[in-house]
Parts: sequence; structure tokens; C-alpha cells
Amino acid sequence: MLGYAGVAVAGAVAGGAGGVAAARRADDASHQAAEMVARDISPYGEHQPAIAALSPKHAELVALNLLPGTNKAALGRLMRLWTADIVALTAGRPAPGDTAPELAVPNAALTVTVGLGARVFALTGSKPAGFDDLPVMRHDRLQAAWSGGDLLLLVGADDAVSVVHAVRRLVADAAPFARPAWRQTGFWNGTGPDGQPVTGRNLFGQVDGTGNPAPGTPDFDATVWADTPDWFRGGTTLVVRRIKLNLDTWDELTRSEQERAVGRKLSTGAPLTGSAEHDELDIEARDADGRLVIAENAHARLSHHSENDGRRIFRKGLNYVQDTGPTRENGLIFLSYQADVAGQFLPLLARLDASDALNEWTTTIGSAVFALPPGFTESGWLAQALLG
Amino acid sequence: MLGYAGVAVAGAVAGGAGGVAAARRADDASHQAAEMVARDISPYGEHQPAIAALSPKHAELVALNLLPGTNKAALGRLMRLWTADIVALTAGRPAPGDTAPELAVPNAALTVTVGLGARVFALTGSKPAGFDDLPVMRHDRLQAAWSGGDLLLLVGADDAVSVVHAVRRLVADAAPFARPAWRQTGFWNGTGPDGQPVTGRNLFGQVDGTGNPAPGTPDFDATVWADTPDWFRGGTTLVVRRIKLNLDTWDELTRSEQERAVGRKLSTGAPLTGSAEHDELDIEARDADGRLVIAENAHARLSHHSENDGRRIFRKGLNYVQDTGPTRENGLIFLSYQADVAGQFLPLLARLDASDALNEWTTTIGSAVFALPPGFTESGWLAQALLG
Ligand code: HEM
Ligand code: HEM
Repeated sequence: MLGYAGVAVAGAVAGGAGGVAAARRADDASHQAAEMVARDISPYGEHQPAIAALSPKHAELVALNLLPGTNKAALGRLMRLWTADIVALTAGRPAPGDTAPELAVPNAALTVTVGLGARVFALTGSKPAGFDDLPVMRHDRLQAAWSGGDLLLLVGADDAVSVVHAVRRLVADAAPFARPAWRQTGFWNGTGPDGQPVTGRNLFGQVDGTGNPAPGTPDFDATVWADTPDWFRGGTTLVVRRIKLNLDTWDELTRSEQERAVGRKLSTGAPLTGSAEHDELDIEARDADGRLVIAENAHARLSHHSENDGRRIFRKGLNYVQDTGPTRENGLIFLSYQADVAGQFLPLLARLDASDALNEWTTTIGSAVFALPPGFTESGWLAQALLG
Repeated sequence: MLGYAGVAVAGAVAGGAGGVAAARRADDASHQAAEMVARDISPYGEHQPAIAALSPKHAELVALNLLPGTNKAALGRLMRLWTADIVALTAGRPAPGDTAPELAVPNAALTVTVGLGARVFALTGSKPAGFDDLPVMRHDRLQAAWSGGDLLLLVGADDAVSVVHAVRRLVADAAPFARPAWRQTGFWNGTGPDGQPVTGRNLFGQVDGTGNPAPGTPDFDATVWADTPDWFRGGTTLVVRRIKLNLDTWDELTRSEQERAVGRKLSTGAPLTGSAEHDELDIEARDADGRLVIAENAHARLSHHSENDGRRIFRKGLNYVQDTGPTRENGLIFLSYQADVAGQFLPLLARLDASDALNEWTTTIGSAVFALPPGFTESGWLAQALLG
């Protein structure tokens, strides 16, 4: 079984240190619970652990900009602070100096992922290969308010109170070094009615995530984990695109028009040439009239690895809604993980910008790129090999 | 055991029709699941079912204003439409005409509560006693953008995608009759680390909801359910207050100052005169220096029923965050259910406005009042006795 449904187990394997942090709480009197369901995700490992884990039900992304005085040494201090916060918060314990310690609760599957923007490498050097800002695409309508940033926090959990509390702590500890530039909040339903993991759907109603390489496989490792420079081994890069979905015009299509735009079925996410979600696309298949079943401009064709010299990315979506008074905007916080932005992501993006059928109902309004340093061990800290 | 922790079971009892809707889906091929966890809440009963049920993890409130042409007959048509939507959506089935049917999923504990604002009674007559707009309090800083409204939708679920999808359907079906005036989105964590229901905490970190009458008890029934006029028997009223919490100045207090402001402990929510969450307040107790342990201006004293001629309300909170660019506002969507707004809620509000210690760190920026008609049966529809 490939795709998201396999991520839970594979993620624990890929995480290296694996396991859960429940044990470390055994002697914590305030958190005794008779039948503790072990859902905490270890903060330790070769990679930052959320990357290969299942999509959280809620997540918040905060981009921060460095204050003028923040040099390399100061950045190192911030990373040590954040590391201590992350170790505590992911175990459901209050972070040092927490002003609302009771809001730290275990078993919320809380994760924190930290990213570094281009300006960090102006201070430190040793920028990962291919790590550059994305050029503006023809269909982009980027707003400064949702773009760029020197640092990223991506906090996810099953429970929104835990996310808000962790973000508040992490942002407060960053105050001497960096200030929030933008915040984006999203949600995802990766659990089926029977409680089992499923791929999940975006607000167009599409199954979204099927084509991903599965965590724990060689494909995934080759797609996601970087090798160079040395300090970056086990790290990856993250592209954040805020994409507005025009549900009103999308809803004017028939279901079969909607399915043709992607090349997959709305019901199961199966390719139009197949019957089950994870069936391989048949890119050459034609219907009785000789027309390609998966259309020339279908999103799943244009982005498929066999059509892109084998280039792959690992995508995770978060749905968002944004209200301006009584008017609601619907969209997708599109997250793409890959070892090399310029080598893997950019060619795909350019291709989709040129001819993707979906462009008619989607508009990218924000864009940012971050390098996610590798994970840390119990004696280490975030980005230590770069900043230590 | 009193309070929220007892609501799950009691709610099912209070709901009258009770039970779950899972059975009606047994023959629905698209929703077959081997081990379905029955979490759907029946839409039928003497009362709208969410009122006495546990707080949802996510909820959205939408206030709508009637279009000029919407008369009593049109309102009846809208209520019949919404009733059909609610019956389908709460069972995890697409509503009639659903444009994203796959986003309707069972077992999300979805509920929809409908409310009627003052303008409805200008069209229909038969306004419930004591149902009037609240006067503006001295500490209020009300914004039109968060206040008033002719109709209310309150949609809750365990999963945010389900909430967003249901709201979209209900608002779309209302389009010929009414337009959104405001939307508020909130979240609550009413589940402990062991998976059992707990009272939950607001963003000050306080246990919030302890003092509530417990659903299923005579106290609850007397507090919440209205008797007159006839059409309103089994209905109730809902006050929605959007209350900004100033976390920055709150955090400057010591923990004991924070606890004195409420009269309860942060750790467990127990009264400062007790040791367990549901211990009765000892309003007279004094410390060694002769000072009242639960201070004169403590929120829990001022709002306690024994200090208010026995007047009670049934409160439910939803935490909210609201971003203006990089700046975050934190707050509480305060929901109060009571049979009679003027008789039960207003005197309490006036008393708190005059002397509540919490006023220093809280500001009410939105206010609205709705009458929630009784529930409906399989052959009936919402507010039928008023509009039919
Ligand atoms: C505009 C908003 C977008 C929507 C609504 C969307 C939706 C989808 C859907 C429904 C699929 C098919 C199911 C799956 O494999 O997950 C898909 C596949 C894919 N999309 Fe997107 N997508 C969007 C933007 C993008 C962007 C910006 C990129 C990259 C630049 C991208 C890259 C991919 C890739 C690589 C696949 C997998 C194709 C395969 O291997 O079969 N998508 N997308
Ligand atoms: C300003 C934001 C507010 C906050 C943060 C807040 C918080 C709390 C807390 C922590 C408690 C104690 C635990 C409990 O019994 O639930 C409480 C109790 C209570 N509050 Fe509030 N509250 C707020 C506003 C209000 C308002 C506007 C009213 C009504 C006008 C109200 C009425 C009550 C009542 C009736 C109780 C129960 C007292 C008892 O019976 O012991 N609160 N509130």
C-alpha cells in the first residue's frame, strides 16, 4: 500500500529515534492518566519528525523576520531555546517559563518543524544547493503579506488549543531575535469514518496526496532528504504556497468536467484509467473516440513523475478559510518537501503554470521557501551543525 | 459528578429521541466501514440536540441578515430546506444538491443549531418573554462587524473540514432569503489525555465550565428550556459575546493574582476554598488575616447562583484567535444558554460589568442574542410551530 495511508507506521521508522515520549511522563504527577493513549511523537531523530508523519488535524505556520541585531551567534541561542521548548511541548510538558502551563497537554500528537529562510544563509553561508526564491509565475498573484520570511515555525497537532499554545510560547521566546511576518492556519482530515488513516480531501472535494512517495521507501528518501552541504544531511526544503480555490466557479462544472481537470475520480481518487485510489495512471489510454482519457492538460498527468524526468516532490495540503467580513475565501496551504527546490520543485511548478487545467480555478497568493535542518538528538540542538 | 464531564451521557438522555443515526446509513454503499465508531448525533428530539451535548472541538457561528423580500412564508421555506440539510449532514450524507458530496462524512459528531433574531419576531409576532437586545455595558467596546443578526447557524463537529463543508451548504441554501453578516470560528478541547471528557480550558488557561448545571438534571432543565409561548416550549435563548482576552497583561500577573481574580485554582479549577474541581464554593471562608478567600470581586463569586437569587445560565466557551497581519488577538466566544435573557442573563451581566475583577483583562467586542426554537421530529421541521 502506497501513499498517505502508510505514513503512520513508516513515519515512525523514518524518524529514526522512533517511539513515543509517553515514558518520560510516567513520573509527572500532573499528567497521570489511567489508560494513556500513546500519541506523542518523539522530537528526536535523524530528521525533523513531522515531515514524514501523517498530516496533523490542525496546523499553524508562522514566518518570522530577523531583527537587525540578530547575528549568527544569536540565531544559535534562539535555536537552543526552541529546541528546549520543542522537547517539552511535544511531550505535553510546559516549556521553560510557560505562562499557561496547564495548556500543555500530552497525547495531542504535537509536532514542531523549524525552517530557515534565505537571509539566514546570508549570515551563515553554506546555503543548500538549489535553495533560491521561486521566480514569480505567470498565474501568480502574490501578496507580500503571505510571502517570504527568514524563519519558519510549523506547528501541528490533533487539537487546536495545543497548536495555539505552542505557537504562542515559541513566538514569545523568539521575541529578542525575530518578529512574526505572517501566520497561516490550516486543517486536514486524514482519518476515515472508521478511525483509520486516509489520504484526505481538499476543499474542491478532491482526494489530495495519493501520488506521493510513501515515507519509509527508497523513493521517499531520494525525494525528500538532502545530502549536502554536510550540515544539511538529513534535512530538506519546504515550499509554502497559499493557493486560493474559487469554489463558486468550480461548482459550475459538471462532475465529469471536474474529474477531467485532474485526471482522477472524485469518489475514490482513482485515476480515470483505473478503479482504486493507488492504481498507476495509464497515461496513454484513449477512449472510444480516440481521446486521451487523462487529458493533455490534466493536473495529474502534468505533475506525474514519469512525465517529469522522474522528478518527484512530497506534498501535504492544509485546507484554509479566510474571512473578510461576511465573505469567505477558501483555499489550500500547499506544502511541498523536496531535497532540492531548483532541481525538483521549480520545473514542475513552471510546467503547471504553463498549462495546468486547474489554473482556471486556482490563484497562488503567497509563496515562501525554507530549508528545514535535520533533526536533533538528546544531546544536540536544531541546526547545531550550521550554527554551533 | 456534575458539570461538563457528565454531559455526554446526560446529553443523549436530554435529547429525547436520543440514540445515533448510524443505523440509517447501513444501506448507504458509499459509507460502508467495517468498524464504524458511532459518533453521529441524532438531529431529532424535543430540543435542538447540540445544546445539551458536549462542546465540539470546532465550531463556526454564522449570523445572517434577512433580505428585504423575506417574509414569514419565505422563512418557513428556508427552515424546511435547512431541516433537510441538517438531517442529511448530521448523518454524514450529502445535503440535497451538494456540490462536494464527498466532503460529507459520518462520525464527525456534526451538529447544527439554528437561531432566530429579533427581526424574525417583527415578522411573526410571538416573541419569547425577555427576548430583547442587551443594553450596552460600560466595559463593552462593541463592533458592528461582530454584533446582531437576524438568523444564526451554529455548526460544530470534531473535524474542521466537516464544519466548513456544512456551513457552506447551509449558507448556499439560504442565499435567496438571507446573507451572512458575520462569521466566528472557535475551538475547544474537551477531551483529556486519556480520551475521557473534561471541562476544557480557555486561553487564559482557566478551567471554564465547572459551575454549569449538568444536562439531564432538573437544575439544567429549569435553567435552559423555555415554556412559553407555546411554539417555543423546549426552546431556549443563546447569547453570543465575542470577548477579547488580553494575554499579555494577564501574563504579567503572578499565578496567585490570576487565581484570585476568578476565585478558583488554575491547576484543577477547584475553588480556592476546596480541593477538587466540583467542590462547592465556600463564599464565607476567610484566611488567617481575616480576608475573604474568594475575593469580593472574584468572577466565580459574582457569577455564582447563590449570590444571584438563584439565577443560573448554561455557558459554553469556544476559544478563538484572530490575526491582523502578524498580530494575533486571543479571545473567547462566550455562549450562554438560558430560558429567559432578561430574567437570567442580563442581571448577571450587569453585575459582572459593574465589579468583576476579570474586566481588567477582557473586552467584549461583539454581542448578539438569538431564540433557538425547539427540536423537530422525523415528520416535522425547524420552528414549524411558529412558521407553519
Ligand atoms: C492549485 C492547487 C492544487 C490542487 C487543488 C492540487 C490537487 C491535486 C490532486 C487532486 C492531485 C491528484 C491526487 C494526488 O496524487 O494527490 C494532485 C497531484 C499532484 N499534484 Fe497537485 N494540486 C495543486 C497544486 C499543485 C502544485 C502547485 C504542484 C507542484 C508545483 C502540484 C503537484 C502535484 C503532484 C506532483 C501530484 C502527483 C501526481 C502523480 O504523481 O500522480 N500540485 N494535485
Ligand atoms: C470575560 C470572559 C470570561 C471568562 C474568561 C470567564 C471565565 C470563567 C471561569 C474560569 C469560571 C470558573 C469556572 C466555572 O465555573 O466555569 C467562570 C464561571 C462563571 N462565569 Fe465566567 N467568564 C467570562 C465571562 C462571563 C460572562 C460574560 C458571564 C455572564 C454574564 C459569565 C458567567 C459565569 C458564571 C455564571 C459562572 C459560574 C459561577 C459558578 O456557579 O460557580 N462569565 N467564568
